[in-house]
Amino acid sequence: MAAGQDWLKLNDRDSVLVALNDLPAGTRIEDGLVLGEAIPRGHKLARHAIAQGEPVLKFGIPIGVATRPIAAGAHVHTQNLAFQPMKVNWRLGGAALPQPARRSASFEGFRRADGRVGTRNYLGVLTTVNCSATVARLIADRFRREVDLAAYPTIDGIASLTHQQGCGARGDGPNITLLRRTLAGYANHPNFAGVLVVALGCEDNQVHDFMAKAGLHPSERLKPLVIQEEGGTEATVRAAIDALKTMIEPAAAATRTPVGAEHLTVGLQCGGSDGFSGLTANPALGRAVDLLAAAGGTGILSETPEIYGAESLLLARVTEPAVGETLIELIRWWEEHARKDDGSLDNNPSPGNKAGGITTILEKSLGAVAKSGSSPLTAVYRYAEPITAKGAVYMDSPGYDPVSATGQVAAGANLVCFTTGRGSCFGCKPAPSLKLATNTPMYQRMKGDMDINCGEIADGTATLDEMGERIFDLMLRTASGEKTSSERLGYGDEEFVPWNYGATY
Amino acid sequence: MAAGQDWLKLNDRDSVLVALNDLPAGTRIEDGLVLGEAIPRGHKLARHAIAQGEPVLKFGIPIGVATRPIAAGAHVHTQNLAFQPMKVNWRLGGAALPQPARRSASFEGFRRADGRVGTRNYLGVLTTVNCSATVARLIADRFRREVDLAAYPTIDGIASLTHQQGCGARGDGPNITLLRRTLAGYANHPNFAGVLVVALGCEDNQVHDFMAKAGLHPSERLKPLVIQEEGGTEATVRAAIDALKTMIEPAAAATRTPVGAEHLTVGLQCGGSDGFSGLTANPALGRAVDLLAAAGGTGILSETPEIYGAESLLLARVTEPAVGETLIELIRWWEEHARKDDGSLDNNPSPGNKAGGITTILEKSLGAVAKSGSSPLTAVYRYAEPITAKGAVYMDSPGYDPVSATGQVAAGANLVCFTTGRGSCFGCKPAPSLKLATNTPMYQRMKGDMDINCGEIADGTATLDEMGERIFDLMLRTASGEKTSSERLGYGDEEFVPWNYGATY
Ligand SMILES: [Ca+2]
Ligand SMILES: [Ca+2]
Ligand SMILES: [Ca+2]
Ligand SMILES: [Ca+2]
Ligand SMILES: [Ca+2]
Repeated sequence: MAAGQDWLKLNDRDSVLVALNDLPAGTRIEDGLVLGEAIPRGHKLARHAIAQGEPVLKFGIPIGVATRPIAAGAHVHTQNLAFQPMKVNWRLGGAALPQPARRSASFEGFRRADGRVGTRNYLGVLTTVNCSATVARLIADRFRREVDLAAYPTIDGIASLTHQQGCGARGDGPNITLLRRTLAGYANHPNFAGVLVVALGCEDNQVHDFMAKAGLHPSERLKPLVIQEEGGTEATVRAAIDALKTMIEPAAAATRTPVGAEHLTVGLQCGGSDGFSGLTANPALGRAVDLLAAAGGTGILSETPEIYGAESLLLARVTEPAVGETLIELIRWWEEHARKDDGSLDNNPSPGNKAGGITTILEKSLGAVAKSGSSPLTAVYRYAEPITAKGAVYMDSPGYDPVSATGQVAAGANLVCFTTGRGSCFGCKPAPSLKLATNTPMYQRMKGDMDINCGEIADGTATLDEMGERIFDLMLRTASGEKTSSERLGYGDEEFVPWNYGATY
Repeated sequence: MAAGQDWLKLNDRDSVLVALNDLPAGTRIEDGLVLGEAIPRGHKLARHAIAQGEPVLKFGIPIGVATRPIAAGAHVHTQNLAFQPMKVNWRLGGAALPQPARRSASFEGFRRADGRVGTRNYLGVLTTVNCSATVARLIADRFRREVDLAAYPTIDGIASLTHQQGCGARGDGPNITLLRRTLAGYANHPNFAGVLVVALGCEDNQVHDFMAKAGLHPSERLKPLVIQEEGGTEATVRAAIDALKTMIEPAAAATRTPVGAEHLTVGLQCGGSDGFSGLTANPALGRAVDLLAAAGGTGILSETPEIYGAESLLLARVTEPAVGETLIELIRWWEEHARKDDGSLDNNPSPGNKAGGITTILEKSLGAVAKSGSSPLTAVYRYAEPITAKGAVYMDSPGYDPVSATGQVAAGANLVCFTTGRGSCFGCKPAPSLKLATNTPMYQRMKGDMDINCGEIADGTATLDEMGERIFDLMLRTASGEKTSSERLGYGDEEFVPWNYGATY
């Protein structure tokens, strides 16, 4: 894309361009292409004549078919473009995709005893139940006062990650099951050098039972503490400080060493999206994920309600039938879940989306799915399940950012990349979270919260490929220890939000 | 009850006594009453002969009927006592109860412009969504650093009450509806001298819409702040500190003045219950609630799943049919709610309950209901609805403590009384929370967390009536400013947990 252009070409194969400004009829786009009518900002125009029944391509992928003949330079929208369910032969799917050229890349990480790699080196305080949340907070507060962490430059700090659940729930119900899976993922996370798990004692989510079933064994780096056994708040805080002090030296002894990018697992998020999310930050992040996948790393796409109705986009990329079947099972589960809630999963473009230039559900979902790039989809996971596959993978979650990111970090993400148009503020200790702005005005207004300005793509000062390289480079630098905006501001203790959807009794 | 006795008589009308220790056969209880068999600790013995079919009374209320003749001094349990659904003529109900003798009592409270009375004088930071939680926390942290609150002795502090909801939910669904009702109750709470409501900007729970619909108008004491409008984290924290600074002088000018006990609204909670909860702390708290009701104040009973199956206990006390009908509607709603969750509301005594001496569902529920005393039940409310009725009232909630207490404080509770056997730790800013221990060993072990030892009733060093007077006196002193254990320890910021049961999208 040339700098300063009024339009954006997302893929060489596309049959449409996207207007970056309101363009009057008669505007000359390029040699031989002149607008036959006015095109509003964010809307699509035909690059060439499109026959009735022909697929219309955006991001190199069909977003629907022409419902009548479309002239070159015409406005492409609801009057001449409609969704048509794609017949995807997903049993071939991603196996047929061009394999990305291998590429090598590395970062400086903390290699743990189990072979996994941390991008940060935190001490952590987890809780089994809300009833131990204040004790967890008091522990972290007192630890910060009593221990001069500045003397231990390799330790990133102490995080107390509290939540609102853990009791008043069926032991075999979704609340406790998802909470336990999430807590296990955090307790095991390679970004933690040492973890306390603080329990009250009488809660449904019993700490010893939780740890035993999750295969977590008390050790020098993982210690459960039960308030009712210790003798109350003060006694527990004292015992916790003592335990944490024994964790300091081993934590401080950890050092960063060069490791391959196959040890980088990146959770992909979008929140507070705007009309430019699908044009700038999301596809640029997708380019970076393609580079990450080519270097052996992992990118995790999630937020099932936001891809609903456009599963074909992902099914077309799966590497084997079982992966596609699991994805379809998730979709069916969500339909039933919404039905029980008297809600719906309608992900069709809203009147606001349409006014902004989005015509079909596939096009809308493409904007979200674009974050995951175009590599084959190698695996599908349930919420907070440990992720071991490489390349682009899928993990089920709601679209609500803190819940989705918490599941990804529990699954092993050691970095999160979060695109935002409206300006979401977010952190998720112990993983760093990069904030990718979709537009320059918001980036300028909220510079202190943002890490990179993908609005440059719409401004014409960077191409998608260039921005993809910059994001990938920033991923590696961040994984190597460079601080993100949200880390500098102090985000990440409040945003631990395990998915909660069962009844509370 | 005489000091040092081995047994407890809960009500003069009772046909049973409760053993406080394991008592061997032949033990002499009182003149003419000798045990015909061994009675385990916590179990019931017959005070006198009971005929087959005769009701068995405990707490002065029938807990079931004798299934065969029971001799004086015999063990009363599952072999000779069974639940029989009570036929309650609740259309008469509480109207027929003896009205408590009026009594006057007062405390020193903060009288607000709307006539309501605070027991504390806090500044507060609320959030519309989890995405503004870190900013709320940063605001409170910076305010504490920048402002020397010790210079303002009438201000109790600043509370930042964050939560995990507010987006990814149906706008008309239960999550947003209950969250808004809860937030409105806190924003309006007489224990707050001034409140900020921090929003992100793009969340489902839009702050301006929330405030307008709740009848909340921005003012010097109530100010919304939107991160995306202010320009990010740092700008919002600065604007918040400026706004809070203008709230200091008006807050500091508030002074305590004597007010009648009709301005005291007490949320009743039990958590981490044990076999003594229903024998000591709960009935003693009930005595105190009777004194409070007689003085014109309000006691709020909640925790619907814990009274399930024994609604008759409450229906027998309602003052008019509409109150009983609303309670029955709540019960039906919970049955449907549990059904959708694939769960159940079974509140029958568990094998553990039975081993501890509890025979019937009525007896088990009586232990929980005893917290509310014996005054007529004047009103039934839904979760977090503003409570204006006086006397004993009911508010629907789950049994999970932080959710239930959050609803009560939102409804207007300016004090919480929390009984606990295992040793729950809890606080709920801006309301103080008294912790009532059910047994002496736990009280001794967790003295720093507890406020009063109702274990004395089982020890024989205080009667239920004496303990009720002591609790009522402590309620008034606490309402007048005496600090509770949980306030000294720093509880109350983490335990703001609005009820959340809808789907997250
Ligand atoms: Ca999204
Ligand atoms: Ca999202
Ligand atoms: Ca919190
Ligand atoms: Ca209870
Ligand atoms: Ca409870």
